[in-house]
Amino acid sequence: EEPTSSLAAQVLATVSILFVIVSMVVLCASTLPEYTAESVREPSGIIEAICIGWFTAECIVRFIVSKNKCEFVRRPLNIIDLLAITPYYISVLMTVFTGENSQLQRAGVTLRVLRMMRIFWVIKLARHFIGLQTLGLTLKRCYREMVMLLVFICVAMAIFSALSQLLENGLDLGTKNKDYASIPAACWWVIISMTTVGYGDMCPITVPGRILGGICVVSGIVLLALPITFIYHSFVQCYHELKFRSARYSRSLSAEFLN
Amino acid sequence: EEPTSSLAAQVLATVSILFVIVSMVVLCASTLPEYTAESVREPSGIIEAICIGWFTAECIVRFIVSKNKCEFVRRPLNIIDLLAITPYYISVLMTVFTGENSQLQRAGVTLRVLRMMRIFWVIKLARHFIGLQTLGLTLKRCYREMVMLLVFICVAMAIFSALSQLLENGLDLGTKNKDYASIPAACWWVIISMTTVGYGDMCPITVPGRILGGICVVSGIVLLALPITFIYHSFVQCYHELKFRSARYSRSLSAEFLN
Amino acid sequence: EEPTSSLAAQVLATVSILFVIVSMVVLCASTLPEYTAESVREPSGIIEAICIGWFTAECIVRFIVSKNKCEFVRRPLNIIDLLAITPYYISVLMTVFTGENSQLQRAGVTLRVLRMMRIFWVIKLARHFIGLQTLGLTLKRCYREMVMLLVFICVAMAIFSALSQLLENGLDLGTKNKDYASIPAACWWVIISMTTVGYGDMCPITVPGRILGGICVVSGIVLLALPITFIYHSFVQCYHELKFRSARYSRSLSAEFLN
Amino acid sequence: EEPTSSLAAQVLATVSILFVIVSMVVLCASTLPEYTAESVREPSGIIEAICIGWFTAECIVRFIVSKNKCEFVRRPLNIIDLLAITPYYISVLMTVFTGENSQLQRAGVTLRVLRMMRIFWVIKLARHFIGLQTLGLTLKRCYREMVMLLVFICVAMAIFSALSQLLENGLDLGTKNKDYASIPAACWWVIISMTTVGYGDMCPITVPGRILGGICVVSGIVLLALPITFIYHSFVQCYHELKFRSARYSRSLSAEFLN
Repeated sequence: EEPTSSLAAQVLATVSILFVIVSMVVLCASTLPEYTAESVREPSGIIEAICIGWFTAECIVRFIVSKNKCEFVRRPLNIIDLLAITPYYISVLMTVFTGENSQLQRAGVTLRVLRMMRIFWVIKLARHFIGLQTLGLTLKRCYREMVMLLVFICVAMAIFSALSQLLENGLDLGTKNKDYASIPAACWWVIISMTTVGYGDMCPITVPGRILGGICVVSGIVLLALPITFIYHSFVQCYHELKFRSARYSRSLSAEFLN
Repeated sequence: EEPTSSLAAQVLATVSILFVIVSMVVLCASTLPEYTAESVREPSGIIEAICIGWFTAECIVRFIVSKNKCEFVRRPLNIIDLLAITPYYISVLMTVFTGENSQLQRAGVTLRVLRMMRIFWVIKLARHFIGLQTLGLTLKRCYREMVMLLVFICVAMAIFSALSQLLENGLDLGTKNKDYASIPAACWWVIISMTTVGYGDMCPITVPGRILGGICVVSGIVLLALPITFIYHSFVQCYHELKFRSARYSRSLSAEFLN
Repeated sequence: EEPTSSLAAQVLATVSILFVIVSMVVLCASTLPEYTAESVREPSGIIEAICIGWFTAECIVRFIVSKNKCEFVRRPLNIIDLLAITPYYISVLMTVFTGENSQLQRAGVTLRVLRMMRIFWVIKLARHFIGLQTLGLTLKRCYREMVMLLVFICVAMAIFSALSQLLENGLDLGTKNKDYASIPAACWWVIISMTTVGYGDMCPITVPGRILGGICVVSGIVLLALPITFIYHSFVQCYHELKFRSARYSRSLSAEFLN
Repeated sequence: EEPTSSLAAQVLATVSILFVIVSMVVLCASTLPEYTAESVREPSGIIEAICIGWFTAECIVRFIVSKNKCEFVRRPLNIIDLLAITPYYISVLMTVFTGENSQLQRAGVTLRVLRMMRIFWVIKLARHFIGLQTLGLTLKRCYREMVMLLVFICVAMAIFSALSQLLENGLDLGTKNKDYASIPAACWWVIISMTTVGYGDMCPITVPGRILGGICVVSGIVLLALPITFIYHSFVQCYHELKFRSARYSRSLSAEFLN
């Protein structure tokens, strides 16, 4: 269970990481436009099957060696494992049942969605990297601050999007900016401006709209950073805690080996 | 008054939050281009009326139960409540008086402005979220730092916009950049660059203009972050203060219940 | 000298701030495209003359009342005052000598440059705002960190611009990106990317160029923020120092009044 | 070895810095489109030869005066020196052997790559600036945090790019966004959005894609900043350490001079 405990566990961990990376690369490659020839598709299908076989085996072994079956099922990482593996079997079953004439529009989309669910395999990496575990622990502890961040963003988005829609489109001042036709469309502009991304696909053109834009950006910088400060502090704390716990665990393990 | 005090208060708070969210959704939906059929407009009108009724009732009850009427009127959250409710009644009155032929350009714009004032209802959420209260308290305490931030932005904007306008448009170096025709137009570029948003609707094309742009961006990062540091510290302090006060209040309340 | 000392000084300070703002507004307005009619140009010329008269008077009074003439001339704020005032007189002289037919291209540009130098009047505001004084003091103390920031930016710019120019344009891989024709042009892309502004007027299109772009952006975020951390700390310290000194000064002054 | 130790060393350091800057300027100039005339190319070739001669001499002297030859060869800064100098000799050799008809496509590209390797000379500046040394030390100490940053970016990129590709292109919802044709292409969008650069060459146009975009940007701000916090702390510590060590070194040196 603990990846740093013994040599065998370390080898297994490395193999798991490799399999995750390989399956990710295959997934990426499968979306490239060059990926149509049968000669490329066949080996990648085989690689997929091997990967999924390994993960299934790993998952079953984990389930068998676990002392408390009930608790095992309820742990979030194991649920993600299950969610990441099942879509493959469903898609295989679907292909078998619908046969070769499965080129129907509907089935194709469903298959693609199921394929993409494999991306959650990367979360399996959390077992092997302390950073991702820290992130998980931080998110669990900071749910109050996450809600605060969400509320801040929503409130600011509501106010600024409504005002910008009014200023850019609502007032009939000769020039109507078609980009700000509705509040939901203006919301996209607000979130992209407040986070200082600024794609430039929409931008205000009237003078009051630009003044509002400036206020929106500055208040976005201030607003977004406030709850993040709390998340930072929590993250630093969680990291030191996990590092300390991991160090103690491996020390106690090596003590066991010595005795 | 204190939302965490009793069960009834909690139910009322939840209902209030729901009403605010519902009315926001209706407001957003009303700006969508699909929103023209009478069949959609009528139910949304009814929802609006229910929401406004609830808020009016809540406001009146709050006024009646308050011990000190004078102080009640002067509290900022109550003033916002009033400002958020009255526009609806004014717009209803306007529709009644101007009759059905209110499709005049002028009245339409006024009505839309009044409708949009409903967006300030979201500030009513501040009663129920500690994060928004903290924000309000922080803004009240940091007014000195806010002024500093404003002065920094204004001074930087004045200097950089004038220089960029001169370099991009003023010097007759063959290529004139029409985007920088006047200093106010250059101001928009400066604020968007200093906050690192960078929409890309305007950007310098001459070599001296680009050098100035680089200096502007780097000094913007430095300048903007300086007063924000103070605001962060104040926010963290206010948050702990409000959390402590709220915890003490609910403890004293539960102590009252026990006695 | 100290703006918070007495009532008369405060009135003078307010008048000075007003004059600076008025002259800034006139300067901004003078670049607007509507600004051509003689009816608008004449009053603005008079306002300019009044402003410049006031600043000259203020400067002379300051020089007369200063105890140490030599030290006075060497203080940076006074040098800026001089630099801000003289261009006006030079431009007046130029107009007088070249006469009415001064519509020559060359003279016009010089006049515009001289006019724009008036923008440095805003730095005069530093006398009246503690924030700007803090900024000045911070810049003076952090010159080591400023140099570090500059060195970091230059080194990163040199490496990334050369590599991006090579990857996007140098290797003859079918598609040549004309935007990256030379290293100086690539420098503009690097500075805009590293500061996360991202106007989008230039962006990499080849795969290796995009990988380099990602590395450039991430390292830019890390690099730029490192020296700025020092500047923050110094700013916070300077602010508290100046606030303390100003408080002590005004206390000693009021003590003098009482005795 | 220590640049602040004596007058002669300081003079040599200044000359080295100058040579690096000169060679950088020549390299930049050589990519400008105006750089084709033989009259410009010849002097720049001579400057190059002088620079390379100086660096070779410096490198050899350094090697001779070093007490421990083995250790000298293994130090990273010396390896960079070697890597920066050798390409020039290789390119000279190549020109000599292939003769004048070296205008072959292949050789031209190789030459350009070798020329560009000269950009690593700027890293030689690390000998003379404490800031760059601190950076190097920080990178060496923070390799764990750098890996964490990399893992965070990779995991987030994998998840968001796959989802955005699915939402924007995979689901057959009438409008297909050609920009998101494959996952690697979507990766570019994810990294540019998460770092808040936002060039705007690709942006989501469907509603679910935009919601995902908002989540991606906000989580990018949070994710990227978390490991950077550790890097900051390490940088501040390294800087104070190096400053202290340098101060002690120069003190002990001046003590030696006095005795």
